[in-house]
Amino acid sequence: MQLGVCYYPEHWPRERWAQDTRDMLAAGISTVRIGEFAWSRLEPRPGQLDFTWLDDAVEVLASAGLKIVMGTPTATPPKWLVDAHPEILAVDENGDVRGFGSRRHYCFASPVYRELSERIVRLMAERYAGNPAITAWQTDNEYGCHDTILSYSAAARSRFPEWLEARYGTVDALNDAWGTVFWSMEVTAFDQVEAPVGTVTEPHPAIVLDYRRFCSDMVAEYNRLQVNTLRAAGVNVDIVHNFMGLFTEFDHFDVSKDLDIASWDSYPLGFLERGAHDDSTKAFYRQQGHPDFAGFHHDLYRAMCKGRWWVMEQQPGPVNWALSNAAPLDGMVRLWSHEAFAHGAELVSYFRWRQAPFAQEQMHAGLLRPDGSQAAAWQEVIAVRDEINVMADAAPDLAASTQSPVALMFDYTAIWACQIQPHAEHFDALELHLLWYSALRRLGLDVDIVSSQDDLKGYSLIALPCQVIADDALAKRLEEARDSGSRIIIGARSGSRTVDFRVPEQLSPGALTGLTGVTVDRVDGLCPGAEPALTLANGHRGHALRWRDLLDSERQQAKIISVFDDGEPAVTEHHSVTYLTGWLNEDSMVALFEGECRKVGIAVNPMPSGVRLRRRGPLCFAFNYAPEARRLPESLVPSDGYLVGATRLPSAGVSIWRDA
Amino acid sequence: MQLGVCYYPEHWPRERWAQDTRDMLAAGISTVRIGEFAWSRLEPRPGQLDFTWLDDAVEVLASAGLKIVMGTPTATPPKWLVDAHPEILAVDENGDVRGFGSRRHYCFASPVYRELSERIVRLMAERYAGNPAITAWQTDNEYGCHDTILSYSAAARSRFPEWLEARYGTVDALNDAWGTVFWSMEVTAFDQVEAPVGTVTEPHPAIVLDYRRFCSDMVAEYNRLQVNTLRAAGVNVDIVHNFMGLFTEFDHFDVSKDLDIASWDSYPLGFLERGAHDDSTKAFYRQQGHPDFAGFHHDLYRAMCKGRWWVMEQQPGPVNWALSNAAPLDGMVRLWSHEAFAHGAELVSYFRWRQAPFAQEQMHAGLLRPDGSQAAAWQEVIAVRDEINVMADAAPDLAASTQSPVALMFDYTAIWACQIQPHAEHFDALELHLLWYSALRRLGLDVDIVSSQDDLKGYSLIALPCQVIADDALAKRLEEARDSGSRIIIGARSGSRTVDFRVPEQLSPGALTGLTGVTVDRVDGLCPGAEPALTLANGHRGHALRWRDLLDSERQQAKIISVFDDGEPAVTEHHSVTYLTGWLNEDSMVALFEGECRKVGIAVNPMPSGVRLRRRGPLCFAFNYAPEARRLPESLVPSDGYLVGATRLPSAGVSIWRDA
Amino acid sequence: MQLGVCYYPEHWPRERWAQDTRDMLAAGISTVRIGEFAWSRLEPRPGQLDFTWLDDAVEVLASAGLKIVMGTPTATPPKWLVDAHPEILAVDENGDVRGFGSRRHYCFASPVYRELSERIVRLMAERYAGNPAITAWQTDNEYGCHDTILSYSAAARSRFPEWLEARYGTVDALNDAWGTVFWSMEVTAFDQVEAPVGTVTEPHPAIVLDYRRFCSDMVAEYNRLQVNTLRAAGVNVDIVHNFMGLFTEFDHFDVSKDLDIASWDSYPLGFLERGAHDDSTKAFYRQQGHPDFAGFHHDLYRAMCKGRWWVMEQQPGPVNWALSNAAPLDGMVRLWSHEAFAHGAELVSYFRWRQAPFAQEQMHAGLLRPDGSQAAAWQEVIAVRDEINVMADAAPDLAASTQSPVALMFDYTAIWACQIQPHAEHFDALELHLLWYSALRRLGLDVDIVSSQDDLKGYSLIALPCQVIADDALAKRLEEARDSGSRIIIGARSGSRTVDFRVPEQLSPGALTGLTGVTVDRVDGLCPGAEPALTLANGHRGHALRWRDLLDSERQQAKIISVFDDGEPAVTEHHSVTYLTGWLNEDSMVALFEGECRKVGIAVNPMPSGVRLRRRGPLCFAFNYAPEARRLPESLVPSDGYLVGATRLPSAGVSIWRDA
Ligand SMILES: [Zn+2]
Ligand SMILES: [Zn+2]
Ligand SMILES: [Zn+2]
Repeated sequence: MQLGVCYYPEHWPRERWAQDTRDMLAAGISTVRIGEFAWSRLEPRPGQLDFTWLDDAVEVLASAGLKIVMGTPTATPPKWLVDAHPEILAVDENGDVRGFGSRRHYCFASPVYRELSERIVRLMAERYAGNPAITAWQTDNEYGCHDTILSYSAAARSRFPEWLEARYGTVDALNDAWGTVFWSMEVTAFDQVEAPVGTVTEPHPAIVLDYRRFCSDMVAEYNRLQVNTLRAAGVNVDIVHNFMGLFTEFDHFDVSKDLDIASWDSYPLGFLERGAHDDSTKAFYRQQGHPDFAGFHHDLYRAMCKGRWWVMEQQPGPVNWALSNAAPLDGMVRLWSHEAFAHGAELVSYFRWRQAPFAQEQMHAGLLRPDGSQAAAWQEVIAVRDEINVMADAAPDLAASTQSPVALMFDYTAIWACQIQPHAEHFDALELHLLWYSALRRLGLDVDIVSSQDDLKGYSLIALPCQVIADDALAKRLEEARDSGSRIIIGARSGSRTVDFRVPEQLSPGALTGLTGVTVDRVDGLCPGAEPALTLANGHRGHALRWRDLLDSERQQAKIISVFDDGEPAVTEHHSVTYLTGWLNEDSMVALFEGECRKVGIAVNPMPSGVRLRRRGPLCFAFNYAPEARRLPESLVPSDGYLVGATRLPSAGVSIWRDA
Repeated sequence: MQLGVCYYPEHWPRERWAQDTRDMLAAGISTVRIGEFAWSRLEPRPGQLDFTWLDDAVEVLASAGLKIVMGTPTATPPKWLVDAHPEILAVDENGDVRGFGSRRHYCFASPVYRELSERIVRLMAERYAGNPAITAWQTDNEYGCHDTILSYSAAARSRFPEWLEARYGTVDALNDAWGTVFWSMEVTAFDQVEAPVGTVTEPHPAIVLDYRRFCSDMVAEYNRLQVNTLRAAGVNVDIVHNFMGLFTEFDHFDVSKDLDIASWDSYPLGFLERGAHDDSTKAFYRQQGHPDFAGFHHDLYRAMCKGRWWVMEQQPGPVNWALSNAAPLDGMVRLWSHEAFAHGAELVSYFRWRQAPFAQEQMHAGLLRPDGSQAAAWQEVIAVRDEINVMADAAPDLAASTQSPVALMFDYTAIWACQIQPHAEHFDALELHLLWYSALRRLGLDVDIVSSQDDLKGYSLIALPCQVIADDALAKRLEEARDSGSRIIIGARSGSRTVDFRVPEQLSPGALTGLTGVTVDRVDGLCPGAEPALTLANGHRGHALRWRDLLDSERQQAKIISVFDDGEPAVTEHHSVTYLTGWLNEDSMVALFEGECRKVGIAVNPMPSGVRLRRRGPLCFAFNYAPEARRLPESLVPSDGYLVGATRLPSAGVSIWRDA
Repeated sequence: MQLGVCYYPEHWPRERWAQDTRDMLAAGISTVRIGEFAWSRLEPRPGQLDFTWLDDAVEVLASAGLKIVMGTPTATPPKWLVDAHPEILAVDENGDVRGFGSRRHYCFASPVYRELSERIVRLMAERYAGNPAITAWQTDNEYGCHDTILSYSAAARSRFPEWLEARYGTVDALNDAWGTVFWSMEVTAFDQVEAPVGTVTEPHPAIVLDYRRFCSDMVAEYNRLQVNTLRAAGVNVDIVHNFMGLFTEFDHFDVSKDLDIASWDSYPLGFLERGAHDDSTKAFYRQQGHPDFAGFHHDLYRAMCKGRWWVMEQQPGPVNWALSNAAPLDGMVRLWSHEAFAHGAELVSYFRWRQAPFAQEQMHAGLLRPDGSQAAAWQEVIAVRDEINVMADAAPDLAASTQSPVALMFDYTAIWACQIQPHAEHFDALELHLLWYSALRRLGLDVDIVSSQDDLKGYSLIALPCQVIADDALAKRLEEARDSGSRIIIGARSGSRTVDFRVPEQLSPGALTGLTGVTVDRVDGLCPGAEPALTLANGHRGHALRWRDLLDSERQQAKIISVFDDGEPAVTEHHSVTYLTGWLNEDSMVALFEGECRKVGIAVNPMPSGVRLRRRGPLCFAFNYAPEARRLPESLVPSDGYLVGATRLPSAGVSIWRDA
């Protein structure tokens, strides 16, 4: 459990660096990220390199004993570079160039920008690879921020046919897989396939899916280029990238394959606003964030690099980029920090050291205010610093997180598939995953997020909220898990598409038909306001929204557990596999999961509203996101007292204890 | 009363064709539409024609005794054609090309595409004109789908001045007609008139109206080219086009002049969502559609080709293109089919035979599911097949629909005029026409829709909801009808514009001034929430919304029948002509029409909510759109029983009886 | 107090001019504006000038004794000009050209259009400069209408770097001022600075602010060119421009420096719709307009040219350009006219004389209807004509408005700053200024609007709702005012930015820190629904919305007067300077101002809902905007009776009396 901070020495007078360094140490900070965004200072004019200021900054930090994470500056190509190579710019779906003047103004598919990126990364790595103070490198910054994954530049458009040829081999295979005979969309050469934009009505969904896969692959290739360049220049420490929250435009599992550590940037208040919760929920949590947002992403990124993960940027106060930027409630910066550690983080790094009084982020808080004085979060960081020591004493050899009893499957392609053909208004697959996650967490459960490729051994309960594209290999692994004693719960739409975005030959749920014992006859898309009611097995009254599968009663193998009031099946069971025909409301999911857990012997601890529980090794953590005090359930009260906090959790309160 | 289906032999293995043919016959289907969208299979590469597969498909169908409607494939020009002739593409109001990748990617004004269309239509006609199995031809498919009427391509822009010259003769006449002296918009040559897009604020309304007329004329010309080509190649069977619901971008009356049969594509659930009803109405009817949507369009298209009309595509289950795609309630496919026959359809053809597992419409139901098994609608079609026989026995020489007692005038130019200058938010003239239609139908009335050019003889009641542009010829025909005993009811805005989009010299209602006996002094546009109340002659309390004319009391000839609470006239009467100053709520329109009918001796039968009545010759039909059971009014219960159904109509129920 | 009208002789047959002239005189009209928009008639083809018709029109008007305001026709360059010089067109933020077909289709920065404008203005001035009937000239028409200030044409883009060089001197100074080191946005030459559009995420706020200043300066330069041209050609009468309501895209104070008289175009019903009030308020005032909209603008434009101002266009009935165009309640045209005089107007001129039956504004009422008969407003104008005489008798030497006790500071740059970085949803600084203005006016107070450069002497109360950019010079003038006995009330966000759009070195409120005695620690942006409650000093319960500063308690010099329920300060006071940390609701502002007025000895007269009071010299005016009757407060009832009206104000009522 380490603390870090993001620092921009180039923003401040050189005379200030020493004081900053001293203050960081005082705050308990061990690790400083620098360098990203600094290209215009490293190379102010084409070919005119200036590393001396960065040498000095590294020296100041290193000599104080601080560890350095060095960022590559490729997220912000400078003006002279863009003027010399305008073809590197991304192009949006309307054909408009996304120009210089902010950041991330490049197309991942651009061979020119790849060459330029390789050069600056190589030059930095050659200079700093051997420096012992540099304990990690960060590639670029926040891939995908500002919707920058999908690009329709000339570079991307000319690369796409190559990508298709590699995937399909022959044009006939492509035509067959996609069904281009429909509406005379057949092509006779790969380069006849255009990017799926500018069409009269919706483009072919299989092209859209492949274009999204292609763009995701371009990110992975680009990141791999940076990693390989760093390695080739002698970098042998950890390589990390800082992902974001709520970003699903590329497959983070793929990109992570080339990284040692996954990290992410945690801004609970801005994410709350961008999320799908209703206005009253948002008003309730406006200064705290939603209690499951950070947790969900912690668990997601823990799944990326064999359990190694950081928070690279932790919100330390109000930020600037949401529509309405609230000030966090006193105590929330401390709470967010502890929660990351509870979920297994190695490092929590605050963004940023000192608020810049200029440019786009001048209203983004730091640990220091623009004038260099301490900001509101300062005292909370000091508290975290001290409480880390208390925990270290109580659990000296704390391992990374151990396996949870519950696995929740998350798959980027499923998100894309529902965006490509939503079929029912507001069907947002990410929202559905978060809803299932919340329901599990409200029961006090630890959750592991798993990809569709991951090993499923050892989980008592495996949940697939919306695994749209399911193949036989996944079905086989699920069957093996079931046969080893796991219960499986599968949500509507799962298995409804093949890998080529077709309706499966055996109809939905396709490869999952044998497992679930159901066949979907047709779909009843639910418009806003249409919420058919149902009664669950335990008597709970709930309802579906947005989606309802209508099952084929003649092909039914499963047992019907619950029905809607109009008689249509809502919940079925088939050899320990539960299938839900609808998107159920959150309370229904809590009731359902409670029953599932009971069947498989998982202990649940229903939490008071806004409180969350998480275990790491022998340590138990409880967090109160509510703006009012809450009490821990009696069953959880430790007999030998708390390391931190108490049974009563004030607003923004944290309690930590050793599990009996 | 015939049943048909839309079929794509090119989507399925040739081995399946024979079974499909047998199954069609089993379902009572007599007519199969094929061919549209097949260009890439008929001509896979430029000039490389392949009709053999279509020859075979025709042969398979024909030899089983099925009748064929052959579609021309021009709605989907293939990729090679677009690459060779990119200038055929339409261009939207922002100047963006509407490209390949879906369908309808051509500009009606393109001389190049007209030449290419003429060629492929001629080639098809030359091959199949004499084939006795082909009993009709369909031109293209769904003109106007995906907002494809208005195009600003170079081809359209260069044709527009010619069109203007033909209309106005001289530039002076154009300047005078439009009043271009306003804001110095005068031109000195026809080719100075630009398409009305890209202006700083709203363009000149008369140019917009003329551009819309021009684009509508391009559709008519394009369709006429196909019809003439078919005829020239020897086609001497019926020629039909399949129109759509809620489409008003071109004048369907004009296009229909060149057709033998008008047909339309009836998707009640998707249209419900796109319509203007409030959310609770939409939720109530979400699995049934609105009870007046199909009926309105049946009556509209019956007006096009001397009463000959089909439903070319009948929704058979959930579709894919609405925001939320509900599954129809059990029985609705049967109800919709019977309702079309009740309104006079010769043929009801389901779209489509078998759900395609690929491409854009993979979630659009057919009579078969993607795997070839029977879909939910199958049994409903079987029921219709049998009930057609029952009706044929009971009414062996059933004529097409006879004249209704009520005429409702519908005019595409009026719709356009209100879109060009709405003057009050949400003033949607199509919505207003539907509202008047609903009010009439709730009284159990049969309605004929008439164009502003149609003969008005024989109608007891003639309703003009919003005849914005009214000329002296129309006024004269209305006067003749009135003098022959018709009552006439005219809504606000009628007569408020001349054919050149000017305020009439005698002020609004212009040519209708003498008829109505009123002069509009000024307009009180009603913002959302402003709903001035009124009391009708029968005591009914209602209100206006969106629009209220304030009358000139000094020029008033008419008698004031009802006033708003603030004293402004709401309803006036002048020699059997009623004028409404406002857009009245639907219940008020029901009350008003009831009074009008009483005055002219039309019997009304107020319907239970969601139930509709329709007569065809000696047959009476009742339909229950409500999701609950309803009973027929006692006055309608037949003394000698029902051919189909009973006095109690279950949800989606149909009752049919012979009129006493 | 004079009446005028806007007239387009070119729209009507020459035979009608004489009658129109006679009718104008009958209506009490003394002044007629003509000429603007007439370019295509003055120069129908390039170089072919035709002034003869205008000579004749001037002659007809002049010979009847009417005074003429001659407008320059540059708002509507004709088609031939645009075809010959397409580079004059403005370009929007998406890069789309804003073309011919309506009006205002030119870019203020275009050197070509400046040359062409200079020429036509010079030609007009040379012809009419000496004509004694022409008593004023109007430059162009409604600068900024239809969002035409911000242009990204090639002309504008190439001029911007010059403008920057003049402002910053060196590129280093620019980089330092803006902080372009952030995100590697540094430039090495002025012409590397691009217009702030087309960026991936938000552009640099300092560039945006400077681009807005630049575009505002282009308007001022363009207007100055016209003024100088008129003067050079011998024009020695008043020069005026007609501004608009709710327009803030350029600095009207700057443009007014070159004018003799500021005028504005008052359309209370359309402005109501475009304003920020809630729907029920809008429905309540739909036929009257908001009671503070016209007053606010009267006071704003009175501040521009040393108190000389006109209403150049007064709404005379329903207009055409709002979403829903209501008819004014009977009496409102009279009320609006008197209200302008009450606020100090020299002239109220109606737009337009006669409703045009053609083109975009064919539904815009005039004093005559399209057929030339009298419109509804006619009798109201006659009443105003007569009542002006009554007032002239009662107050024969009525001065322009005298100084009010209250000053409200209004600053265009503050509006822009909040648009550039709103930080909290719906933070509209113009709305906040209107809210403070309403609160003051509900207390029966006269208000002067002042710019941030104006002299502040003599005001008992000075209110700064949102003076975002505050410099030391302003702070000094405020301190002097305070030291002379003024109370000052300063709203949140004031002083939060430097002139270079940076956080001030001493943190917010920057230059106002000493004056207010507070330091803002951080901001709590309030999302919709978040409305923290507070108790004011007088016990009034209110709340904040959208914005709340959290103060630094350690740097606090001011006394805390009121706090929010969670303990955060809401109102502070420091040596007669009140600071508000939040955007408070309107009722709270009324309560606050009442207390402030009491402290400084300003008498308040709380008004009945919808009633407003205004004094001009010895005359008192009361106006009832409510749609129901109201009574004047007893304290205001004059002992010696009314010149116009009575104590009971009917809906749309006006009462006028001499102050005791
Ligand atoms: Zn290059
Ligand atoms: Zn061509
Ligand atoms: Zn030019």
